[in-house]
Amino acid sequence: MKRKAPDVVVRRLALYLRILDEIGTDAGEPEPIPSFELGRRAGVSAAQVRKDLSLFGEFGKQGVGYDARFLRDQLRRVLKLDRVVNIGMAGAGALGVALGRYSIRRHMTQPSYPFRLAALFDVDPAKVGVKVGQARVYHLDQLPEKVKEMEIRMMIIAVPADAAQKVADMCGMAGVKAILNFAPAKLTPPPGVRLHSADLTMELQHLAYYL
Amino acid sequence: MKRKAPDVVVRRLALYLRILDEIGTDAGEPEPIPSFELGRRAGVSAAQVRKDLSLFGEFGKQGVGYDARFLRDQLRRVLKLDRVVNIGMAGAGALGVALGRYSIRRHMTQPSYPFRLAALFDVDPAKVGVKVGQARVYHLDQLPEKVKEMEIRMMIIAVPADAAQKVADMCGMAGVKAILNFAPAKLTPPPGVRLHSADLTMELQHLAYYL
Repeated sequence: MKRKAPDVVVRRLALYLRILDEIGTDAGEPEPIPSFELGRRAGVSAAQVRKDLSLFGEFGKQGVGYDARFLRDQLRRVLKLDRVVNIGMAGAGALGVALGRYSIRRHMTQPSYPFRLAALFDVDPAKVGVKVGQARVYHLDQLPEKVKEMEIRMMIIAVPADAAQKVADMCGMAGVKAILNFAPAKLTPPPGVRLHSADLTMELQHLAYYL
Repeated sequence: MKRKAPDVVVRRLALYLRILDEIGTDAGEPEPIPSFELGRRAGVSAAQVRKDLSLFGEFGKQGVGYDARFLRDQLRRVLKLDRVVNIGMAGAGALGVALGRYSIRRHMTQPSYPFRLAALFDVDPAKVGVKVGQARVYHLDQLPEKVKEMEIRMMIIAVPADAAQKVADMCGMAGVKAILNFAPAKLTPPPGVRLHSADLTMELQHLAYYL
């Protein structure tokens, strides 16, 4: 697989895709979208849009703009969102369940939403066996086996901070390729795993500037 | 107030602050931190670090590096984190309560953590009056009055998507200056309000590239 794109570009691709999804490309014949319009909505220049997209192929014609539906489908393909992505949730506490329910709701209301909550994991015997939507809570010890069985390649971590690294390492050993960490801890990514952290504190610190 | 700094710079300031907090600057005499080291940890060049910081003052001496503790205190001041920030939570469902508990835990374990959950708001009569840590759930109708009384200038929105814009508008009218939105909806910021969205879907779409 080619991994030539810098991560900031990948992040912008996800943003472009969201913009295209918002514009709506399913009903009727969509208007072509010029790079300056896509850039305006994404907060970057038209040149940046063209440069980002050119890393992945020829998606538009000079002077015509991008065919919104075609570009959306191509971005989904590049981001590997043209297939179902099974997600596991480590931690079936309040945050894990809330995040899991969010994922389930989206899956029901948007048929093209690719993420499917496959399973949750917890160490609390009172939680093991409980269902969140269609997904079941398993004991954390079953993580390696269930990750393989259910082809879970992405995990969300919503366990207490002091357990997060151990859980991340388990995920890596089990073959998980990407982790989104919600635990308030700085984690070392296991080998071969892409790890992002959703850091509430940093979001709040950033926003405080505007008070 | 000066607002000359682009938002990407403000975001990096929060990142620099986190790095300084991780290095630890309270015990003993910290080593000076060179701009290349701060840049390496933040994923930007030394020149970018110096340029970012120079927007806010003279924080280091040529060739010596930054005094980590002094820089940390200055960043806290710039980001307005040198005082308590009262936060309100709109939505006392699973996500709101989980986010609220997270905030409370941090406040207890880190005395310098500036964010304090002051109140939650919900429309469900069964939730009104309940306490989350020290914070009480009020009816959403009381938001304008409680925001003023408790000097809440920042709100987290964790209500269903179809109610989020209305709640954001209420916050703006009540004098809130910054909103962190967790509802899966694209919101229009009320006049004079800085609004960021924590978008789980976009995080997952971004990570899917690495599967």
